[in-house]
Amino acid sequence: MTELQRQGAAAKAASRALAIAGTEKKNEALEAIASILERRQDEWLAANAEDLAAAREAGMRTSMLDRLALTPERVAQIAGGVREAAALPDPVGEIVKETVRPNGLLIRRQRVPLGVIAIIYEARPNVTVDAAALCLKAGNACILRGGKEAIRSNRCAAALMREALASVGLPEDAISLVQNTDRESAHELMHLEEYVDVLIPRGGAGLIRAVAKEASVPVIRTGEGVCHVYVDKDADLAMAAKILYNAKCSRPSVCNAAECAVLHKSVAEAFLNEALPLLDQKNVELRGDAKICNILGTRAKEASEEDWDAEYGDYTLAVKTVTSLDEAISFINDHGTGHSECIVTSDEEAARRFLSEVDAAAVYWNASTRFTDGGEFGLGAEIGISTQKLHARGPMGLEELTSWKYVVTGNGQVR
Amino acid sequence: MTELQRQGAAAKAASRALAIAGTEKKNEALEAIASILERRQDEWLAANAEDLAAAREAGMRTSMLDRLALTPERVAQIAGGVREAAALPDPVGEIVKETVRPNGLLIRRQRVPLGVIAIIYEARPNVTVDAAALCLKAGNACILRGGKEAIRSNRCAAALMREALASVGLPEDAISLVQNTDRESAHELMHLEEYVDVLIPRGGAGLIRAVAKEASVPVIRTGEGVCHVYVDKDADLAMAAKILYNAKCSRPSVCNAAECAVLHKSVAEAFLNEALPLLDQKNVELRGDAKICNILGTRAKEASEEDWDAEYGDYTLAVKTVTSLDEAISFINDHGTGHSECIVTSDEEAARRFLSEVDAAAVYWNASTRFTDGGEFGLGAEIGISTQKLHARGPMGLEELTSWKYVVTGNGQVR
Repeated sequence: MTELQRQGAAAKAASRALAIAGTEKKNEALEAIASILERRQDEWLAANAEDLAAAREAGMRTSMLDRLALTPERVAQIAGGVREAAALPDPVGEIVKETVRPNGLLIRRQRVPLGVIAIIYEARPNVTVDAAALCLKAGNACILRGGKEAIRSNRCAAALMREALASVGLPEDAISLVQNTDRESAHELMHLEEYVDVLIPRGGAGLIRAVAKEASVPVIRTGEGVCHVYVDKDADLAMAAKILYNAKCSRPSVCNAAECAVLHKSVAEAFLNEALPLLDQKNVELRGDAKICNILGTRAKEASEEDWDAEYGDYTLAVKTVTSLDEAISFINDHGTGHSECIVTSDEEAARRFLSEVDAAAVYWNASTRFTDGGEFGLGAEIGISTQKLHARGPMGLEELTSWKYVVTGNGQVR
Repeated sequence: MTELQRQGAAAKAASRALAIAGTEKKNEALEAIASILERRQDEWLAANAEDLAAAREAGMRTSMLDRLALTPERVAQIAGGVREAAALPDPVGEIVKETVRPNGLLIRRQRVPLGVIAIIYEARPNVTVDAAALCLKAGNACILRGGKEAIRSNRCAAALMREALASVGLPEDAISLVQNTDRESAHELMHLEEYVDVLIPRGGAGLIRAVAKEASVPVIRTGEGVCHVYVDKDADLAMAAKILYNAKCSRPSVCNAAECAVLHKSVAEAFLNEALPLLDQKNVELRGDAKICNILGTRAKEASEEDWDAEYGDYTLAVKTVTSLDEAISFINDHGTGHSECIVTSDEEAARRFLSEVDAAAVYWNASTRFTDGGEFGLGAEIGISTQKLHARGPMGLEELTSWKYVVTGNGQVR
């Protein structure tokens, strides 16, 4: 057995205990985790300081350093997130359906944990705790594999969380960290079929695509977002400008931010007159098709084919004109990532068609794509936003971290 | 573009039309399919006769020839199955949840089709029609890849179904058959990520495991069944014998048949006295552990380690003794395939623990494992029985062939 196989077997065994631990015990563990992270934050911050020093030495960019950094405020936020997970309703055990068949069999479909959830992520130590807390609340063991840049922080957090689990009598292997951060360990985790029920990659599009391609364990793809705002010919243009500005500029690095404005040609110029003063506030770089460049002159660059599929994550916006709703829908279905897509229009029939024919996790009529989020949707916390259609689509809350079983009760029935 | 990529792109385009076709149009198509298969069954039977002749020449076993063969009665049954799919409620469009958020956003979670479903299966021409009908009813396009032994039958059935689709004005690419039956075509289909939303392998355990290992598109594993009947120390032994006999012998080739009896040692001998007269009716071969061989002498063979993981699909039964409920649960969790597991007991607490701690799609208390079936569970038809935990678990009916989207309606909300 390799080290990771041993870890997988231990996680599987722990998952069986966790599946029947009950809400109260799981909440007790979550409180113990929040409390130990606060009480012993000096250890965690010291480990993080070592990670930061090494990262600075290796020349990490400032924005990445910021993601890696822990502060007492961030620790307090992270601990608060763990307590929020404790406060959420426990999905496990819920009877989703119940029928009595003509032969007298009582059949209940009941929510159960998925089992062992593996998470591969990059240099954000908060994910180590956020993900572990949500997995735990839904009764799952987790195997965490963070980036090498955060390994000291992650080791410390995992050790503290395991201590907290043990302190309330739960198996510490319900949370474990892959100690090795080389490529081989990620590769092996992607093929740990005997022990891993689902693998969730969290991070950039490159990581997620590579994992989906390589893994033989079931994967949930999350967080690839090439989102569009379509301004229809019957749009309220002031509203459209406000929505586009929000979708693009309120937080351009996140996956529900817009990357491309699709404009009906009959309103393109008038709309740009409304939108430019807003976009100019953030010096948004525009990359337009021929018609847009015609209207905007040097204010826009000419878009290349790659621009229509780009997830900029920055103050850059592709702008495309179309001659019909049909063309808008086709363009979005061809170039979107199935994340969040918006139409701005006063025409109910156009909206109805867009909402029904655009193939994405979330479709919006007259509202910003930025709302695609577990908290905004009222699901509580989320572990990611799924862009695939199998098992989970859109923000993944606790329910999406469960499966079900059929529990059948009889008195001797045979077939 | 390869031939299969073109087929994938055509299926994806057809899936968009099908997703918005509406219940009435889909039912019209199903009726047209049932009707054309009956009306022109001579063509289908002739193609099947050629398949059978070739298979006989190649020395195919009788039981396999029987699976491959079509008859007018079987055609009538298959057409009847298509009409049953038409009669089932349409899951697409159902609003599963609806909330109005404090900011006024109306958020609906609505069922939508999965998109394009690929199915890889073996030499059973009925699957070609059964699977296509269920995919169609749930609004999905399908790409069918049957075995080479049934290729003439499958080509004919696919051509007739495509004609039926066109006759009601739906795109014929909503149903398509992979024309090439070599390994490369299956391999390519498993990696057709741009077009295939989910791949469902149907067939023997070898096929399913190979597909799950190889595919980069999302896969649902179905139909691997190493099922157990556990006879507890407090079991009604006559009931237990009747259940075991039914679970083993009513149809040993199917995935919900039992492969192993797990006996509490305190009742093993008394139980065997009840069960043997039944098992003897079918000359069931017994493979026991040392204690069982001790009790039964030459009536049982000694089980090897492989027997505890074997899916015999035949009149063969492994028999294992345990000294406690805990040992029974561990043994079943270690050796089962997560399909269907049964406890026979009068002890409610033992049943409660078994039902909650055994990790399987269906868990039974005092009833035969043979009930794990879409029809028996009241789901209508099924496309398979999932043994994984992601997306679908247990019998997969129409609902399991859908995903959802979030449809969000606002009046200018920004975040």
